[in-house]
Amino acid sequence: MISIVVIGFGNVGSHLCEAFKKAKDVELVQIFNRTKISLPESLKHIDFTHSVSDLAEADIYLLALPDDVISEFSEKLPKNKSLVVHTSGAVSMNKLNDKNLRGVFYPLQSFSRRRLPDYEKIPICIEAERSTDLRLLRKLGESISNKVVEVNSEERSRLHLSAVFVNNFVNHLYHISENLLEEANLDFNLLKPLIRESALKIDTMSASQAQTGPALRGDIKTLEKHLHLLKDSQFKEIYEQLTSSIQETYGKKL
Amino acid sequence: MISIVVIGFGNVGSHLCEAFKKAKDVELVQIFNRTKISLPESLKHIDFTHSVSDLAEADIYLLALPDDVISEFSEKLPKNKSLVVHTSGAVSMNKLNDKNLRGVFYPLQSFSRRRLPDYEKIPICIEAERSTDLRLLRKLGESISNKVVEVNSEERSRLHLSAVFVNNFVNHLYHISENLLEEANLDFNLLKPLIRESALKIDTMSASQAQTGPALRGDIKTLEKHLHLLKDSQFKEIYEQLTSSIQETYGKKL
Repeated sequence: MISIVVIGFGNVGSHLCEAFKKAKDVELVQIFNRTKISLPESLKHIDFTHSVSDLAEADIYLLALPDDVISEFSEKLPKNKSLVVHTSGAVSMNKLNDKNLRGVFYPLQSFSRRRLPDYEKIPICIEAERSTDLRLLRKLGESISNKVVEVNSEERSRLHLSAVFVNNFVNHLYHISENLLEEANLDFNLLKPLIRESALKIDTMSASQAQTGPALRGDIKTLEKHLHLLKDSQFKEIYEQLTSSIQETYGKKL
Repeated sequence: MISIVVIGFGNVGSHLCEAFKKAKDVELVQIFNRTKISLPESLKHIDFTHSVSDLAEADIYLLALPDDVISEFSEKLPKNKSLVVHTSGAVSMNKLNDKNLRGVFYPLQSFSRRRLPDYEKIPICIEAERSTDLRLLRKLGESISNKVVEVNSEERSRLHLSAVFVNNFVNHLYHISENLLEEANLDFNLLKPLIRESALKIDTMSASQAQTGPALRGDIKTLEKHLHLLKDSQFKEIYEQLTSSIQETYGKKL
């Protein structure tokens, strides 16, 4: 049985608490949050504290905290023989204070309060200094996911960078599209099947095989028509830059 | 029963042929393609021609052709009382020769030869000059889809522009991400659950509600780290521009 204290009850922390609570071989002994919060019904019976001095003993302290407070918070923790891990894609393991054993437990997913993710399919990227700690983190990861991979801090930062492209930037393109349709009084729902298909396609072919559209075809008439529609839009430059990049990538520079 | 001749057996034409063949109340009487092709087993019994003079009679001639040949091809068609429609998002209805009745039947989806789309969920955007033709196109659309909407040429070009953002440009971001991971010897499959979740999220919340990440948070440390990782990359400017655009959109300009 792995005992764990989850520190921070934001998007990542709250979802991991729910997952650990349901997991076999994991005992969620305590939840810490800087401010007092009311736990959801499903976690009501879990011990809660907002004071560092009241932290319970556990095998693992999991810091689900904003990137910029991870280092500072790890200093405040009592020195003991437990493993302290953070859940960030962008923060190196060695930002954790070295008075304790250190590691990383990074779920490669975007969590929103309102959506239940499919935990089993979320890749968990683990890192630790000692092989026994790696084994412990692997066991913890496998208690909630089918995919646990060892990834060092340098690799993790590259994964995180790529995740920004396929999640944050892709979502911004959805926003741009929603915005353009709103201005034209058109229903964004019409694009949802296309959005879904564009994502699912990637399961069965590479992105370069899936690429289509006027930029790839070098279809100047359509490109000009689109730039005309965007002539007063703040998003015109994004259209131009992504079009150029597609043309450079596929060697059809106009 | 609506009789139809499909002209052009590319990605759109071939998928529509399969759909019409299965549809009730639609008779696919002939397939035309400029070059001789061998039809798949499922369409073997359908009459095929590659000669305009051999075109069969039908209620609707559906031109599933590249944008730049639609106008020219519509001139070659015999003058009769049939309805001639094209399937393009970017071409105005009036680019069709006016010797025949004109219309548009635009399935808002990205078709790939190797993937079977879920026809029922593909929005079909229809346009025609006469209300009887609109009714006919609606009936044809409803024979294969649950979502048929009337959209004029101006609206359709805006839908098509937005589709470029959520399909072509999004797919290019997938490619960039795949490329960055390849360079670091990391497995692109690790990102697929995130790609899927990013697309599915849009079903239950708006893109602006779903936006997360370092650009939105104004997390300068992470942004600088990412730009450093991208310092020799051809994709650095895309990172910078999309980051700025997110910050302008959500008012967190740094």
